[in-house]
Amino acid sequence: MSDGQVRPRTAAVIIIGNEILSGRTRDANLPFLARELAALGIRLREARVVPDEIDAVVEAVNSCRRRYDWVFTTGGIGPTHDDITAQAIARAFGRPLVRHPEAERRLRAWYGEDALNAARLKMADMPEGAELIDNPISAAPGFRLSNVLVLAGIPEVARAMFTTLRPVLAGGPPMASRTLLVHAPEGDVAALLADIQRAFRDLEIGSYPFYRKGQVGTHAVFRGTDPARLEAARAALARRLEAAGIAFERWDGAEGA
Amino acid sequence: MSDGQVRPRTAAVIIIGNEILSGRTRDANLPFLARELAALGIRLREARVVPDEIDAVVEAVNSCRRRYDWVFTTGGIGPTHDDITAQAIARAFGRPLVRHPEAERRLRAWYGEDALNAARLKMADMPEGAELIDNPISAAPGFRLSNVLVLAGIPEVARAMFTTLRPVLAGGPPMASRTLLVHAPEGDVAALLADIQRAFRDLEIGSYPFYRKGQVGTHAVFRGTDPARLEAARAALARRLEAAGIAFERWDGAEGA
Repeated sequence: MSDGQVRPRTAAVIIIGNEILSGRTRDANLPFLARELAALGIRLREARVVPDEIDAVVEAVNSCRRRYDWVFTTGGIGPTHDDITAQAIARAFGRPLVRHPEAERRLRAWYGEDALNAARLKMADMPEGAELIDNPISAAPGFRLSNVLVLAGIPEVARAMFTTLRPVLAGGPPMASRTLLVHAPEGDVAALLADIQRAFRDLEIGSYPFYRKGQVGTHAVFRGTDPARLEAARAALARRLEAAGIAFERWDGAEGA
Repeated sequence: MSDGQVRPRTAAVIIIGNEILSGRTRDANLPFLARELAALGIRLREARVVPDEIDAVVEAVNSCRRRYDWVFTTGGIGPTHDDITAQAIARAFGRPLVRHPEAERRLRAWYGEDALNAARLKMADMPEGAELIDNPISAAPGFRLSNVLVLAGIPEVARAMFTTLRPVLAGGPPMASRTLLVHAPEGDVAALLADIQRAFRDLEIGSYPFYRKGQVGTHAVFRGTDPARLEAARAALARRLEAAGIAFERWDGAEGA
Protein backbone atom coordinates (compact mmCIF):
# COMPACT_ATOMS: atom_id res chain seq x y z
CA MET A 1 0.00 0.00 0.00
CA SER A 2 1.44 3.37 -0.88
CA ASP A 3 2.56 5.68 1.92
CA GLY A 4 -0.07 7.80 3.59
CA GLN A 5 -2.93 5.95 1.93
CA VAL A 6 -5.97 5.98 4.18
CA ARG A 7 -7.89 2.84 4.99
CA PRO A 8 -10.82 2.56 2.55
CA ARG A 9 -14.16 3.03 4.22
CA THR A 10 -16.27 -0.11 4.51
CA ALA A 11 -19.95 -0.94 4.34
CA ALA A 12 -22.47 -3.75 4.75
CA VAL A 13 -25.91 -4.05 3.15
CA ILE A 14 -28.81 -5.74 4.92
CA ILE A 15 -31.75 -6.63 2.67
CA ILE A 16 -34.88 -7.09 4.77
CA GLY A 17 -37.69 -9.08 3.18
CA ASN A 18 -39.33 -12.51 3.15
CA GLU A 19 -40.12 -11.99 -0.53
CA ILE A 20 -36.43 -12.27 -1.47
CA LEU A 21 -35.91 -15.44 0.61
CA SER A 22 -39.06 -17.07 -0.75
CA GLY A 23 -37.96 -16.48 -4.33
CA ARG A 24 -41.01 -14.31 -5.10
CA THR A 25 -38.92 -11.21 -5.78
CA ARG A 26 -35.43 -10.86 -7.17
CA ASP A 27 -33.54 -8.24 -5.21
CA ALA A 28 -32.37 -5.27 -7.25
CA ASN A 29 -31.00 -3.14 -4.42
CA LEU A 30 -27.80 -5.04 -3.72
CA PRO A 31 -26.44 -4.77 -7.30
CA PHE A 32 -27.30 -1.06 -7.30
CA LEU A 33 -25.70 -0.35 -3.92
CA ALA A 34 -22.63 -2.46 -4.77
CA ARG A 35 -21.92 -0.39 -7.88
CA GLU A 36 -22.68 2.95 -6.24
CA LEU A 37 -20.53 2.23 -3.18
CA ALA A 38 -17.60 1.15 -5.36
CA ALA A 39 -17.90 4.41 -7.31
CA LEU A 40 -17.74 6.32 -4.01
CA GLY A 41 -14.64 4.40 -2.89
CA ILE A 42 -16.53 2.54 -0.17
CA ARG A 43 -15.72 -1.15 0.06
CA LEU A 44 -18.80 -3.32 0.43
CA ARG A 45 -17.59 -6.11 2.71
CA GLU A 46 -20.73 -8.11 3.37
CA ALA A 47 -24.39 -8.38 2.47
CA ARG A 48 -27.16 -10.24 4.24
CA VAL A 49 -30.74 -11.05 3.38
CA VAL A 50 -32.90 -11.50 6.47
CA PRO A 51 -36.63 -12.14 6.99
CA ASP A 52 -39.18 -9.56 8.20
CA GLU A 53 -38.54 -10.49 11.84
CA ILE A 54 -37.36 -8.10 14.50
CA ASP A 55 -34.84 -10.48 16.09
CA ALA A 56 -33.23 -11.31 12.77
CA VAL A 57 -32.85 -7.63 11.85
CA VAL A 58 -31.51 -6.69 15.29
CA GLU A 59 -28.87 -9.39 15.11
CA ALA A 60 -27.75 -8.49 11.59
CA VAL A 61 -27.63 -4.75 12.33
CA ASN A 62 -25.74 -5.14 15.58
CA SER A 63 -23.28 -7.56 14.03
CA CYS A 64 -22.56 -5.18 11.15
CA ARG A 65 -22.74 -1.69 12.64
CA ARG A 66 -19.77 -2.26 14.95
CA ARG A 67 -17.64 -3.70 12.19
CA TYR A 68 -18.19 -1.44 9.21
CA ASP A 69 -18.19 2.31 8.66
CA TRP A 70 -21.65 2.26 7.10
CA VAL A 71 -24.58 -0.14 7.23
CA PHE A 72 -27.40 0.19 4.71
CA THR A 73 -30.72 -1.52 5.18
CA THR A 74 -33.40 -1.79 2.51
CA GLY A 75 -37.04 -2.72 3.02
CA GLY A 76 -39.56 -2.92 5.81
CA ILE A 77 -40.39 0.76 6.28
CA GLY A 78 -43.92 0.76 4.83
CA PRO A 79 -47.29 0.87 6.61
CA THR A 80 -48.15 -2.84 6.96
CA HIS A 81 -47.74 -5.41 9.74
CA ASP A 82 -44.66 -6.93 8.08
CA ASP A 83 -42.81 -3.57 8.08
CA ILE A 84 -40.71 -3.95 11.23
CA THR A 85 -37.44 -2.22 10.35
CA ALA A 86 -37.86 0.94 12.47
CA GLN A 87 -38.80 -1.12 15.53
CA ALA A 88 -35.83 -3.40 14.95
CA ILE A 89 -33.33 -0.53 14.57
CA ALA A 90 -34.70 1.06 17.76
CA ARG A 91 -34.20 -2.21 19.62
CA ALA A 92 -30.73 -2.72 18.12
CA PHE A 93 -29.67 0.66 19.54
CA GLY A 94 -31.65 0.30 22.79
CA ARG A 95 -33.65 3.44 22.02
CA PRO A 96 -37.39 4.10 22.20
CA LEU A 97 -39.45 4.30 19.03
CA VAL A 98 -40.92 7.80 18.86
CA ARG A 99 -42.99 9.74 16.37
CA HIS A 100 -40.72 11.99 14.33
CA PRO A 101 -42.47 15.40 14.01
CA GLU A 102 -41.00 16.32 10.63
CA ALA A 103 -41.75 12.88 9.18
CA GLU A 104 -45.32 13.22 10.44
CA ARG A 105 -45.58 16.66 8.88
CA ARG A 106 -44.46 15.29 5.52
CA LEU A 107 -46.92 12.39 5.66
CA ARG A 108 -49.79 14.75 6.55
CA ALA A 109 -48.88 17.01 3.65
CA TRP A 110 -48.57 14.08 1.22
CA TYR A 111 -51.64 12.04 2.15
CA GLY A 112 -53.98 14.74 3.43
CA GLU A 113 -55.96 14.31 6.63
CA ASP A 114 -58.51 11.94 5.02
CA ALA A 115 -56.05 9.26 3.97
CA LEU A 116 -53.60 9.56 6.87
CA ASN A 117 -54.73 6.62 8.98
CA ALA A 118 -52.86 4.92 11.85
CA ALA A 119 -51.08 2.52 9.50
CA ARG A 120 -49.59 5.33 7.44
CA LEU A 121 -48.70 7.38 10.52
CA LYS A 122 -46.62 4.38 11.67
CA MET A 123 -44.18 5.40 8.92
CA ALA A 124 -43.27 8.43 11.08
CA ASP A 125 -42.28 6.22 14.03
CA MET A 126 -38.49 6.04 14.24
CA PRO A 127 -35.82 5.43 16.85
CA GLU A 128 -35.21 8.48 19.05
CA GLY A 129 -32.52 10.66 17.50
CA ALA A 130 -33.05 9.45 13.92
CA GLU A 131 -32.32 11.96 11.14
CA LEU A 132 -34.55 11.82 8.09
CA ILE A 133 -33.43 10.62 4.66
CA ASP A 134 -35.53 12.40 2.04
CA ASN A 135 -37.89 10.40 -0.15
CA PRO A 136 -38.45 12.48 -3.29
CA ILE A 137 -40.85 9.88 -4.71
CA SER A 138 -43.46 8.98 -2.13
CA ALA A 139 -42.80 11.23 0.89
CA ALA A 140 -42.38 8.57 3.61
CA PRO A 141 -38.76 9.16 4.64
CA GLY A 142 -35.95 6.77 5.43
CA PHE A 143 -33.69 7.60 8.34
CA ARG A 144 -30.16 7.60 9.61
CA LEU A 145 -29.15 6.61 13.12
CA SER A 146 -25.42 6.82 13.76
CA ASN A 147 -23.80 4.80 10.94
CA VAL A 148 -26.98 2.93 9.98
CA LEU A 149 -28.83 4.21 6.89
CA VAL A 150 -32.38 2.91 6.51
CA LEU A 151 -33.71 2.93 2.93
CA ALA A 152 -36.95 1.79 1.34
CA GLY A 153 -37.22 -1.59 -0.37
CA ILE A 154 -38.88 -0.41 -3.58
CA PRO A 155 -35.88 0.00 -5.90
CA GLU A 156 -36.94 3.38 -7.35
CA VAL A 157 -37.35 4.81 -3.86
CA ALA A 158 -34.15 3.23 -2.55
CA ARG A 159 -32.25 4.79 -5.45
CA ALA A 160 -33.77 8.21 -4.92
CA MET A 161 -32.91 8.05 -1.22
CA PHE A 162 -29.35 6.96 -1.96
CA THR A 163 -28.93 9.92 -4.29
CA THR A 164 -29.72 12.31 -1.46
CA LEU A 165 -27.00 10.61 0.63
CA ARG A 166 -24.17 10.96 -1.87
CA PRO A 167 -22.75 14.17 -0.33
CA VAL A 168 -22.64 12.46 3.10
CA LEU A 169 -20.88 9.41 1.68
CA ALA A 170 -18.49 11.09 -0.73
CA GLY A 171 -14.87 11.79 0.02
CA GLY A 172 -12.70 8.75 -0.57
CA PRO A 173 -10.89 7.81 -3.76
CA PRO A 174 -13.21 5.64 -5.87
CA MET A 175 -12.54 1.93 -6.31
CA ALA A 176 -11.30 1.33 -9.82
CA SER A 177 -10.72 -1.83 -11.82
CA ARG A 178 -8.73 -3.08 -14.78
CA THR A 179 -9.43 -6.29 -16.62
CA LEU A 180 -7.31 -8.54 -18.79
CA LEU A 181 -9.23 -10.95 -20.98
CA VAL A 182 -7.03 -14.04 -21.21
CA HIS A 183 -7.58 -16.57 -24.01
CA ALA A 184 -6.91 -19.57 -21.81
CA PRO A 185 -8.90 -21.45 -19.17
CA GLU A 186 -8.43 -20.51 -15.52
CA GLY A 187 -6.44 -23.60 -14.70
CA ASP A 188 -3.76 -22.66 -17.25
CA VAL A 189 -3.12 -19.24 -15.70
CA ALA A 190 -3.79 -19.94 -12.02
CA ALA A 191 -0.09 -20.14 -11.09
CA LEU A 192 0.74 -16.89 -12.94
CA LEU A 193 -2.15 -15.11 -11.27
CA ALA A 194 -1.11 -16.31 -7.83
CA ASP A 195 2.41 -14.90 -8.47
CA ILE A 196 0.96 -11.53 -9.48
CA GLN A 197 -1.31 -11.46 -6.41
CA ARG A 198 1.76 -12.10 -4.20
CA ALA A 199 3.59 -9.19 -5.86
CA PHE A 200 0.58 -6.83 -5.54
CA ARG A 201 -0.84 -7.59 -2.11
CA ASP A 202 -2.53 -4.17 -1.90
CA LEU A 203 -4.80 -5.07 -4.84
CA GLU A 204 -7.69 -7.47 -5.04
CA ILE A 205 -7.18 -9.77 -8.02
CA GLY A 206 -10.15 -11.84 -9.11
CA SER A 207 -10.29 -14.61 -11.69
CA TYR A 208 -13.55 -15.32 -13.52
CA PRO A 209 -13.90 -18.02 -16.16
CA PHE A 210 -16.10 -17.43 -19.18
CA TYR A 211 -17.38 -19.41 -22.13
CA ARG A 212 -18.11 -17.41 -25.26
CA LYS A 213 -18.62 -18.46 -28.87
CA GLY A 214 -17.26 -21.89 -28.03
CA GLN A 215 -14.10 -20.42 -26.47
CA VAL A 216 -13.02 -20.83 -22.89
CA GLY A 217 -11.26 -17.90 -21.27
CA THR A 218 -10.55 -16.04 -18.06
CA HIS A 219 -11.19 -12.48 -16.98
CA ALA A 220 -8.44 -11.36 -14.62
CA VAL A 221 -9.83 -8.37 -12.73
CA PHE A 222 -7.61 -6.01 -10.69
CA ARG A 223 -9.37 -3.82 -8.12
CA GLY A 224 -8.07 -1.00 -5.96
CA THR A 225 -8.07 2.75 -5.51
CA ASP A 226 -4.73 3.59 -7.19
CA PRO A 227 -4.99 3.49 -11.01
CA ALA A 228 -1.21 3.42 -11.41
CA ARG A 229 -0.94 0.28 -9.27
CA LEU A 230 -3.75 -1.34 -11.26
CA GLU A 231 -1.98 -0.59 -14.54
CA ALA A 232 1.31 -1.90 -13.12
CA ALA A 233 -0.29 -5.15 -12.00
CA ARG A 234 -2.04 -5.66 -15.31
CA ALA A 235 1.17 -4.92 -17.20
CA ALA A 236 3.03 -7.44 -15.03
CA LEU A 237 0.47 -10.12 -15.86
CA ALA A 238 0.61 -9.18 -19.55
CA ARG A 239 4.41 -9.66 -19.56
CA ARG A 240 4.09 -13.07 -17.91
CA LEU A 241 1.40 -14.13 -20.40
CA GLU A 242 3.51 -12.98 -23.35
CA ALA A 243 6.47 -14.94 -22.05
CA ALA A 244 4.23 -18.02 -21.73
CA GLY A 245 2.79 -17.57 -25.25
CA ILE A 246 -0.79 -17.08 -23.99
CA ALA A 247 -2.96 -14.60 -25.89
CA PHE A 248 -4.84 -11.83 -24.07
CA GLU A 249 -6.62 -8.49 -24.57
CA ARG A 250 -6.92 -5.40 -22.43
CA TRP A 251 -10.58 -5.19 -21.64
CA ASP A 252 -12.30 -2.28 -19.97
CA GLY A 253 -15.75 -2.79 -21.34
CA ALA A 254 -19.17 -2.69 -19.77
CA GLU A 255 -18.50 -5.03 -16.92
CA GLY A 256 -18.66 -2.74 -13.92
CA ALA A 257 -15.93 -2.35 -11.34
CA MET B 1 -50.52 -25.02 12.95
CA SER B 2 -52.38 -28.25 12.21
CA ASP B 3 -51.85 -31.24 14.48
CA GLY B 4 -48.84 -33.41 13.80
CA GLN B 5 -47.35 -30.93 11.36
CA VAL B 6 -43.58 -31.22 11.39
CA ARG B 7 -41.34 -28.20 11.68
CA PRO B 8 -40.38 -27.09 8.15
CA ARG B 9 -36.74 -27.69 7.39
CA THR B 10 -34.60 -24.56 7.14
CA ALA B 11 -31.66 -23.42 5.07
CA ALA B 12 -29.17 -20.61 4.60
CA VAL B 13 -27.29 -19.65 1.43
CA ILE B 14 -23.77 -18.21 1.53
CA ILE B 15 -22.65 -16.55 -1.71
CA ILE B 16 -18.85 -16.38 -1.79
CA GLY B 17 -17.35 -13.83 -4.17
CA ASN B 18 -15.77 -10.39 -4.30
CA GLU B 19 -17.32 -9.93 -7.74
CA ILE B 20 -20.81 -9.73 -6.24
CA LEU B 21 -19.77 -7.22 -3.55
CA SER B 22 -17.89 -5.05 -6.05
CA GLY B 23 -20.91 -4.84 -8.33
CA ARG B 24 -19.09 -6.50 -11.23
CA THR B 25 -21.41 -9.50 -11.29
CA ARG B 26 -25.07 -9.77 -10.44
CA ASP B 27 -25.67 -12.93 -8.45
CA ALA B 28 -28.04 -15.41 -10.08
CA ASN B 29 -27.66 -18.27 -7.61
CA LEU B 30 -29.70 -16.86 -4.74
CA PRO B 31 -32.89 -16.36 -6.79
CA PHE B 32 -32.50 -19.88 -8.19
CA LEU B 33 -31.89 -21.51 -4.82
CA ALA B 34 -34.70 -19.52 -3.16
CA ARG B 35 -37.24 -20.81 -5.67
CA GLU B 36 -35.94 -24.38 -5.64
CA LEU B 37 -35.84 -24.61 -1.86
CA ALA B 38 -39.39 -23.26 -1.59
CA ALA B 39 -40.55 -25.91 -4.06
CA LEU B 40 -38.92 -28.57 -1.87
CA GLY B 41 -40.61 -27.24 1.27
CA ILE B 42 -37.34 -25.96 2.73
CA ARG B 43 -37.58 -22.53 4.27
CA LEU B 44 -34.69 -20.25 3.30
CA ARG B 45 -34.11 -18.23 6.46
CA GLU B 46 -31.03 -16.20 5.63
CA ALA B 47 -28.56 -15.42 2.87
CA ARG B 48 -25.14 -13.83 3.08
CA VAL B 49 -22.68 -12.54 0.52
CA VAL B 50 -19.10 -12.70 1.76
CA PRO B 51 -15.74 -11.90 0.15
CA ASP B 52 -13.17 -14.49 -1.02
CA GLU B 53 -11.50 -14.54 2.39
CA ILE B 54 -11.09 -17.58 4.56
CA ASP B 55 -12.00 -15.89 7.84
CA ALA B 56 -15.18 -14.40 6.41
CA VAL B 57 -16.32 -17.76 5.01
CA VAL B 58 -15.47 -19.61 8.24
CA GLU B 59 -17.49 -17.18 10.29
CA ALA B 60 -20.52 -17.29 8.01
CA VAL B 61 -20.48 -21.09 7.72
CA ASN B 62 -20.09 -21.67 11.45
CA SER B 63 -22.79 -19.14 12.27
CA CYS B 64 -25.24 -20.79 9.86
CA ARG B 65 -24.50 -24.52 10.07
CA ARG B 66 -25.51 -24.78 13.73
CA ARG B 67 -28.73 -22.87 13.18
CA TYR B 68 -30.22 -24.27 9.99
CA ASP B 69 -30.83 -27.76 8.65
CA TRP B 70 -28.94 -27.06 5.43
CA VAL B 71 -26.30 -24.54 4.42
CA PHE B 72 -25.53 -24.01 0.74
CA THR B 73 -22.42 -22.20 -0.41
CA THR B 74 -21.78 -21.06 -3.97
CA GLY B 75 -18.47 -19.99 -5.46
CA GLY B 76 -14.78 -20.28 -4.73
CA ILE B 77 -14.13 -23.89 -5.75
CA GLY B 78 -12.12 -23.26 -8.93
CA PRO B 79 -8.38 -23.53 -9.54
CA THR B 80 -7.19 -19.96 -8.86
CA HIS B 81 -5.68 -18.18 -5.83
CA ASP B 82 -9.02 -16.56 -4.96
CA ASP B 83 -10.78 -19.94 -4.70
CA ILE B 84 -10.62 -20.53 -0.96
CA THR B 85 -13.91 -22.25 -0.14
CA ALA B 86 -12.59 -25.78 0.47
CA GLN B 87 -9.87 -24.46 2.81
CA ALA B 88 -12.44 -22.37 4.63
CA ILE B 89 -14.90 -25.24 5.11
CA ALA B 90 -12.06 -27.46 6.40
CA ARG B 91 -11.12 -24.80 8.92
CA ALA B 92 -14.76 -24.21 9.91
CA PHE B 93 -15.07 -27.91 10.80
CA GLY B 94 -11.54 -28.20 12.25
CA ARG B 95 -10.62 -30.88 9.72
CA PRO B 96 -7.55 -31.25 7.51
CA LEU B 97 -7.74 -30.50 3.81
CA VAL B 98 -6.94 -33.72 1.96
CA ARG B 99 -6.86 -34.82 -1.65
CA HIS B 100 -10.08 -36.68 -2.46
CA PRO B 101 -9.12 -39.75 -4.56
CA GLU B 102 -12.35 -39.95 -6.56
CA ALA B 103 -12.30 -36.20 -7.26
CA GLU B 104 -8.70 -36.54 -8.44
CA ARG B 105 -9.68 -39.48 -10.67
CA ARG B 106 -12.43 -37.40 -12.28
CA LEU B 107 -10.14 -34.44 -12.87
CA ARG B 108 -7.47 -36.71 -14.45
CA ALA B 109 -10.10 -38.25 -16.72
CA TRP B 110 -11.53 -34.86 -17.70
CA TYR B 111 -8.35 -32.86 -18.28
CA GLY B 112 -5.93 -35.61 -19.32
CA GLU B 113 -2.41 -35.77 -17.89
CA ASP B 114 -1.11 -32.89 -20.03
CA ALA B 115 -3.49 -30.25 -18.76
CA LEU B 116 -3.81 -31.47 -15.17
CA ASN B 117 -1.44 -29.04 -13.46
CA ALA B 118 -1.13 -28.27 -9.74
CA ALA B 119 -3.74 -25.50 -9.91
CA ARG B 120 -6.39 -27.84 -11.34
CA LEU B 121 -5.47 -30.64 -8.93
CA LYS B 122 -6.25 -28.20 -6.10
CA MET B 123 -9.91 -28.71 -7.04
CA ALA B 124 -9.63 -32.24 -5.59
CA ASP B 125 -8.52 -30.90 -2.18
CA MET B 126 -11.44 -31.08 0.23
CA PRO B 127 -12.04 -31.36 3.96
CA GLU B 128 -11.50 -34.89 5.28
CA GLY B 129 -14.75 -36.84 5.11
CA ALA B 130 -16.30 -34.76 2.32
CA GLU B 131 -18.73 -36.56 -0.02
CA LEU B 132 -18.70 -35.48 -3.65
CA ILE B 133 -21.51 -33.59 -5.36
CA ASP B 134 -21.47 -34.50 -9.05
CA ASN B 135 -20.68 -31.84 -11.64
CA PRO B 136 -22.22 -33.04 -14.92
CA ILE B 137 -20.92 -29.97 -16.77
CA SER B 138 -17.22 -29.53 -16.08
CA ALA B 139 -16.18 -32.50 -13.90
CA ALA B 140 -14.71 -30.63 -10.89
CA PRO B 141 -17.08 -31.74 -8.12
CA GLY B 142 -18.70 -29.86 -5.30
CA PHE B 143 -18.90 -31.54 -1.94
CA ARG B 144 -21.02 -32.14 1.11
CA LEU B 145 -19.70 -32.13 4.66
CA SER B 146 -22.37 -32.78 7.28
CA ASN B 147 -25.16 -30.28 6.54
CA VAL B 148 -23.01 -27.98 4.39
CA LEU B 149 -23.41 -28.31 0.62
CA VAL B 150 -20.67 -26.67 -1.43
CA LEU B 151 -21.68 -25.71 -4.98
CA ALA B 152 -19.88 -23.96 -7.83
CA GLY B 153 -20.38 -20.25 -8.47
CA ILE B 154 -21.03 -20.46 -12.21
CA PRO B 155 -24.83 -20.55 -12.37
CA GLU B 156 -25.09 -23.36 -14.93
CA VAL B 157 -22.83 -25.57 -12.82
CA ALA B 158 -24.54 -24.63 -9.55
CA ARG B 159 -27.90 -25.60 -11.08
CA ALA B 160 -26.62 -28.90 -12.39
CA MET B 161 -25.13 -29.70 -8.98
CA PHE B 162 -28.35 -28.75 -7.21
CA THR B 163 -30.30 -31.08 -9.49
CA THR B 164 -28.21 -34.02 -8.35
CA LEU B 165 -29.04 -33.12 -4.72
CA ARG B 166 -32.83 -33.06 -5.10
CA PRO B 167 -33.34 -36.65 -3.85
CA VAL B 168 -31.29 -35.85 -0.71
CA LEU B 169 -33.30 -32.69 -0.05
CA ALA B 170 -36.78 -33.92 -0.93
CA GLY B 171 -39.32 -35.07 1.58
CA GLY B 172 -41.18 -32.15 3.13
CA PRO B 173 -44.44 -30.64 1.91
CA PRO B 174 -43.62 -27.83 -0.54
CA MET B 175 -44.13 -24.19 0.43
CA ALA B 176 -47.15 -22.85 -1.42
CA SER B 177 -48.53 -19.35 -1.83
CA ARG B 178 -51.76 -17.58 -2.67
CA THR B 179 -52.01 -13.95 -3.71
CA LEU B 180 -54.79 -11.42 -3.60
CA LEU B 181 -54.32 -8.40 -5.83
CA VAL B 182 -55.96 -5.52 -3.96
CA HIS B 183 -56.95 -2.36 -5.83
CA ALA B 184 -55.95 -0.04 -3.00
CA PRO B 185 -52.66 1.28 -1.66
CA GLU B 186 -50.98 -0.58 1.21
CA GLY B 187 -51.86 2.05 3.76
CA ASP B 188 -55.59 1.55 3.13
CA VAL B 189 -55.48 -2.17 3.85
CA ALA B 190 -52.74 -2.36 6.48
CA ALA B 191 -55.14 -2.68 9.41
CA LEU B 192 -57.17 -5.44 7.67
CA LEU B 193 -54.01 -7.34 6.83
CA ALA B 194 -52.74 -7.11 10.39
CA ASP B 195 -56.07 -8.58 11.60
CA ILE B 196 -55.77 -11.48 9.16
CA GLN B 197 -52.17 -12.13 10.20
CA ARG B 198 -53.29 -12.29 13.85
CA ALA B 199 -55.98 -14.84 12.92
CA PHE B 200 -53.55 -16.96 10.83
CA ARG B 201 -50.34 -16.96 12.84
CA ASP B 202 -49.14 -20.18 11.19
CA LEU B 203 -48.95 -18.41 7.80
CA GLU B 204 -46.53 -15.81 6.55
CA ILE B 205 -48.50 -12.90 5.10
CA GLY B 206 -46.57 -10.40 3.04
CA SER B 207 -47.72 -7.07 1.65
CA TYR B 208 -46.11 -5.67 -1.51
CA PRO B 209 -47.15 -2.39 -3.10
CA PHE B 210 -47.19 -2.05 -6.86
CA TYR B 211 -47.73 0.70 -9.41
CA ARG B 212 -49.14 -0.39 -12.75
CA LYS B 213 -50.77 1.55 -15.55
CA GLY B 214 -51.06 4.55 -13.28
CA GLN B 215 -52.82 2.51 -10.58
CA VAL B 216 -51.55 1.92 -7.07
CA GLY B 217 -52.28 -1.46 -5.53
CA THR B 218 -51.12 -4.09 -3.08
CA HIS B 219 -50.28 -7.75 -3.50
CA ALA B 220 -51.22 -9.63 -0.34
CA VAL B 221 -49.22 -12.88 -0.42
CA PHE B 222 -50.03 -15.83 1.87
CA ARG B 223 -47.29 -18.44 2.30
CA GLY B 224 -47.30 -21.80 4.03
CA THR B 225 -47.37 -25.53 3.46
CA ASP B 226 -51.10 -26.20 3.90
CA PRO B 227 -53.12 -25.12 0.83
CA ALA B 228 -56.40 -25.27 2.75
CA ARG B 229 -55.09 -22.79 5.32
CA LEU B 230 -53.86 -20.51 2.54
CA GLU B 231 -57.27 -20.56 0.86
CA ALA B 232 -58.99 -19.90 4.18
CA ALA B 233 -56.77 -16.92 4.91
CA ARG B 234 -57.24 -15.48 1.46
CA ALA B 235 -61.00 -15.96 1.70
CA ALA B 236 -61.03 -14.22 5.08
CA LEU B 237 -59.23 -11.22 3.60
CA ALA B 238 -61.57 -11.22 0.60
CA ARG B 239 -64.61 -11.05 2.93
CA ARG B 240 -63.10 -8.15 4.85
CA LEU B 241 -62.29 -6.29 1.63
CA GLU B 242 -65.82 -6.84 0.29
CA ALA B 243 -67.27 -5.49 3.52
CA ALA B 244 -65.03 -2.42 3.20
CA GLY B 245 -65.96 -1.87 -0.46
CA ILE B 246 -62.38 -2.38 -1.71
CA ALA B 247 -61.93 -4.15 -5.06
CA PHE B 248 -59.60 -7.13 -5.43
CA GLU B 249 -58.74 -10.08 -7.69
CA ARG B 250 -57.51 -13.58 -6.94
CA TRP B 251 -54.11 -13.70 -8.54
CA ASP B 252 -52.01 -16.78 -8.97
CA GLY B 253 -49.99 -15.66 -11.91
CA ALA B 254 -46.31 -15.83 -12.70
CA GLU B 255 -44.99 -14.32 -9.53
CA GLY B 256 -43.34 -17.28 -7.91
CA ALA B 257 -44.01 -18.55 -4.42
